[in-house]
This record gives sequence, structure tokens and C-alpha cells, in this order.
Amino acid sequence: MGVPTPKQFCPVLERPLISYTLQALERACWIKDVVVVVTEENMQAMENIIQKYKHKSISLVEAGVTRHRSIFNGLRALADNRLNSKLSKPEVVIIHDAVRPFFDEDILLKVVTAAKEHGAAGAVRPLVSTVISPSADGCLDYSLERARHRASEMPQAFLFDVIYEAYQRCSDYDLEFGTECLQLALKYCHIKAKLVEGSPDLWKVTYKRDLYAAESIIKERISQEICIVMDTKENEEHIGHLLEEILKTELNHVQVTSQALYNAGSDIQQINLEQCYNFVCVNVKTPDFRETQKLLSMLEESNFSLLYPIVVVSVHFLDFKLVSPSQKMESLMWIREFAKEMRKRNILLYGLLINHSQVGKT
Amino acid sequence: MGVPTPKQFCPVLERPLISYTLQALERACWIKDVVVVVTEENMQAMENIIQKYKHKSISLVEAGVTRHRSIFNGLRALADNRLNSKLSKPEVVIIHDAVRPFFDEDILLKVVTAAKEHGAAGAVRPLVSTVISPSADGCLDYSLERARHRASEMPQAFLFDVIYEAYQRCSDYDLEFGTECLQLALKYCHIKAKLVEGSPDLWKVTYKRDLYAAESIIKERISQEICIVMDTKENEEHIGHLLEEILKTELNHVQVTSQALYNAGSDIQQINLEQCYNFVCVNVKTPDFRETQKLLSMLEESNFSLLYPIVVVSVHFLDFKLVSPSQKMESLMWIREFAKEMRKRNILLYGLLINHSQVGKT
Repeated sequence: MGVPTPKQFCPVLERPLISYTLQALERACWIKDVVVVVTEENMQAMENIIQKYKHKSISLVEAGVTRHRSIFNGLRALADNRLNSKLSKPEVVIIHDAVRPFFDEDILLKVVTAAKEHGAAGAVRPLVSTVISPSADGCLDYSLERARHRASEMPQAFLFDVIYEAYQRCSDYDLEFGTECLQLALKYCHIKAKLVEGSPDLWKVTYKRDLYAAESIIKERISQEICIVMDTKENEEHIGHLLEEILKTELNHVQVTSQALYNAGSDIQQINLEQCYNFVCVNVKTPDFRETQKLLSMLEESNFSLLYPIVVVSVHFLDFKLVSPSQKMESLMWIREFAKEMRKRNILLYGLLINHSQVGKT
Repeated sequence: MGVPTPKQFCPVLERPLISYTLQALERACWIKDVVVVVTEENMQAMENIIQKYKHKSISLVEAGVTRHRSIFNGLRALADNRLNSKLSKPEVVIIHDAVRPFFDEDILLKVVTAAKEHGAAGAVRPLVSTVISPSADGCLDYSLERARHRASEMPQAFLFDVIYEAYQRCSDYDLEFGTECLQLALKYCHIKAKLVEGSPDLWKVTYKRDLYAAESIIKERISQEICIVMDTKENEEHIGHLLEEILKTELNHVQVTSQALYNAGSDIQQINLEQCYNFVCVNVKTPDFRETQKLLSMLEESNFSLLYPIVVVSVHFLDFKLVSPSQKMESLMWIREFAKEMRKRNILLYGLLINHSQVGKT
């Protein structure tokens, strides 16, 4: 990848990639334990990530020198039923990569259900490029028919006893050079894994361009909803409601909801839990940004800006005929200073002054 | 991909993907002709792209219904030596995909050289995922050893007579369902293509995430250089030169050059040809943005903003003690209006007012 940081710890919108993957696993509430296999040198960094982003039910296990040895260590931790261990042997185990943050609960359910029935299952995708085999002199030996092959992706799932037995039986050569868990189940337990066609989301972050793609996908996801917060009652006549209507009409593909902030903090909690990260705060009654400050302190308390940046556009109406240019400058300066403070908390604050007198009330 | 536009016409920074690929081919001045195979319904769109982005030496040929039929049509156009055709049969032909804009001249040279020696050659990459073969019931039949296989990428190159003969001999089944030109050369001309290990850049835009990645890669490439333009002489003492020093120190990984605009337009031409797309224009002597306007009209004339967005930060020094708040507002408003105009020409203009009196001259 050309960067010194291991891929899974690379920041995407300032948060390590692995934290997104853990969050995606946490959304499936039927997953009991998550074992993260991590090298000794990254153990402390991983503990810090778990603490900072408040990940739950995670156990850390030391990695081996190869992929298969690491997975084996993870399985051992689940099998051991050690004293003092909060882990216990599961019926089904999911094996997943830290660098694949984009999967939904649906594919997890499908591979787990198939694993229960077949003993093993894994997500697959069509091949993007034709696969060929080179001869010893670096020339084309043969090419594979693209339609008859699949790329093996993650997640995969197994009856725990099947995959654990496969790892216990497999050779040192497998542990050193193997890459495919499904192959171990086939070779050592004669289990033919069920292949589940997955969505394009299942790709793995491998190159720097994948980090760029991951960032854009996350940005797109958190841009799907805007919440308009206003300090007037819904039935009150105000230019702010006109703005709300315009936003709803103009922004295609974006869900626009609105909330009156004045009636409780509990509404904001609810908005956040629905994963809204974009707010337009319309200050109608208070020219001194008080409503924006109220919204911002609620957002700060919620801690949601830990996971994703929150965008707040603070809208203000001024009659430019009635206020002096220096008052306008003061408003701009205030927003700028306040925005600097908020930036440190991963909240991106923007100010918008609207000349209200020009709009008029006809 | 989930978008109605064919991938090669999708805009990346507002320019169609295929135009980037054509530009990359044009950088190799030893390529005589470029034949673009395009479906009838997209013929006009393709002609518009060639005209708008001023691509040279391009011939358009109508596509077939499959990949191989399209390539065959392209080869026929080169073989025909038709009357009125500016094309003539080449010794070596490169086959490339419109959706692979990121390759350098080096890999083109390598595959062409290898094709001259071996008759055929193609770029390959290590496999990112393990490749498996499903059985008829959707279960794992076998998995391939990842290290012994490669993904076949583009560009590929062939002795023209070899690949043209292969296409003339090949079966309808090949033309309908085949995906690999190297395989045709092997099967019908017994030519074992040389495989050339390529860089990760050779990937093909397949999914929406790849468009995101392409955009970020292009943004990164055009952000590698900043040119500071100033309307003072280099040896003159001015706060602007301090800014220059700071930029040079602070911006790691970015090459900062500086130019005095006053001495000719030819300098700007030179800057552009070195592919600089980022300018900081420091207005020292003229408080009315005249230097920025001069730079902008030069950039407009150069037409470089056709290919990539150009960013201009217009810097101005005002003594806030001496100018009124309304003067400051006027400056802000002027820049805003001017920026709107420039936006239409793919030039992104930003204004920066610096309070000069605070800095002082000690």
C-alpha cells in the first residue's frame, strides 16, 4: 500500500479502518463475542481503539506469523473454555477480515445459515479480471474461463467443530502458505462449503486507492440524511420553513427531516440514533446563535461525532438594512472562532447569514 | 455499477473517464494512431469528447456486441488500408480498456517490447482474492493456489499479424464468450504471450467505488505542485515573500515554486506545461485584485482548465485599522461574484484577506 501503518489501522475520516469493521459486526446483535487477532506490537493500539470508540464484547488474541496461524490462535481462544475467560465455544464461528468494513447483516445471516446447514460457507464474487497461469519462464501457460470461477471473499462461517478440527489436522505447509479456510474444511473434514453470492461491497481494502474509495463510500453514507432544526413551532409562519421546503425539493437522494429543538433534548438523541450526521440549524428567534449552541452541546454530549464527523450549518437571518457592516463581520468572526473549537470535537460548523429584508413577507 | 451512463463516459472531476485514458496514451508520442471502438449510440458523445478535450490522432470504429467482436472491428480498421483512411497497418498493436486511465509510458513500452520479441505480451498483477471453482450445486469444488496464478490486466500488445490472424481464425464461441486476447493468440497462433508484472495502477474502473478512487487519485496527482505568483520583484522586501517561505516549509510532499507575474505571460505558459494546477496569487501593489484578474485571464487562454480544475487562491493584504468594515465586505462580495463566473470555466477561485497591520514591520 505504500504507507507504514498496517492497513487495518489506517485512518478513514480520522477513524481507524478496523473500527468501522467492528461497528458493522456490532450491528448484528446476535453475534455473541468478537475475537480480534492482533500482533503483539499493535496490541496497545488496538486496546486504545476499542476504548476510544467504545467497542463492546471484544477479546484480543495474539496473532501468528501467517494468516492461517492467526486464525488458528483465534479459534483456540474460543475452544479453550479457559478459567477467567469470558469466551465460550460457539456453535458457529464467522471468520472475517479487519479490512472489509462494508458488509451488511444480510450477508452475515446468509453465510451463517448456510454454514449451519452445510458445515461451511463463504461469500463469493464474480471475477473482475481473467485469471491466468504463468509457466516457469513467465509466459502464458493457460487462462481460466472467467464465468466458471469466483473470487472467494469474506465473511465466511463454519460449524466451530468443523473448522477447528480442520486447523488441528492441517499441515505446517498449509499453515505457512495457505490462504483459504474453505479449502481446509474441504481437505481435512470433507466439507464442501456452500458459496453465497455477495454484493460488490464485500471488497477488501488492499491498495491506497481502496482507502480513497472507503472514505468516499463512508462520506456518501453519512450524507444521505439531513435534519433541519428550528427554534420556531411547526405551524408558525416563517422564512425558515420556506428554506426547509426548498431543501426537501432540491436535494434528491437525500432524506430531509425536521425537528423543533425547543421541546426537548430527547428528540436529538433519537435523530442521532437514526444515524443522521447533517444538521441545518435555523436561528429564528435568537440572533445570537443560542439555538446553534444548544444543538452543538447536545451533539457533543451524544458522543456520536466520535464515530463520524457531524456537519452543522448554522443559518441566521439579518436585515442588512438594519445592521451595520461591522455587526455582519462580527457574526462571521464569531462563527469562525466557534467552528475552530468544534473542529477538535469532529463537528464541522458552517455559518450562513441570510439577508432577510430582501425576501419580504408578501 | 448502478449508474445509467456507460463507465467510460462517467465524469471524474467533470471530465469523462475515457478522456483521461486517451490523454495517458497521448503522452506516449511513439503511438501513431488510436482507434476507439464505440457503440453507435455513443458515437456522437465520443466525437464531442474528442473535440472538447482536443484529443489528437483518434479514429472511431463501431463496436460489436461483445468484447472480442469490438476488438476485431478495431483490428479490421487498421488492416484494411482503405481508401480515404488515414490508418495503416502497424507492426505492433496495443489493446487497452477505456476504463483503465492510470498507466504510465513505462508499462506501455515494456509490453510493446515484449510483444515484438514474443509475438504477444500482457500486463499481469498478483491475485487479491483466492480464486475458487464452484460445483453445479453452488458448493466449493476446488480452490486455486493464489501464488501460482495472476490476474490478467491491460495493456496488452501483439505483433499485428499474430493477433489479426488469431481473430480471423477464432470460433464464434470465442467471439461470443471469450474474454482474453492472450488466449486467442495462444490457441490459434501458438504464441505464448510474455507476462509483464505491472504496478497496482493498472486496475480497471468496474464499480462505483472505483470512480471514487479514480477521483481521489487524480486530485492527489494535481495537488503535488503549487505555484506562487506575486506582483513584486523577488528581491523586494514584502510580507508576501514571508508567506511564500511559510508555504514552502509547511507543505510537505508538495512542490512549491514561485513566479513573478509582472515580467511576462510566457512564464505562465511554462508553469502550465509543467502541469501545475494550483496557484496562490499574492496581490501586493494593487488592492483591487488586478493581478489575480491578469493570472486568471492567462489561465483561461491556456485552456488547461479543460483537462483539470485549476485552483487559484487570491491573497490580499488590508490594514483593518485603515479600511472600513464595509470595504472588507465589498472585497468578500467581489471575490464571491468573480468566483461564480470562474467556476463555469473549471477554475476554482478562493479569496483570502490578511490583516497586514497586525503583522507589522520590525
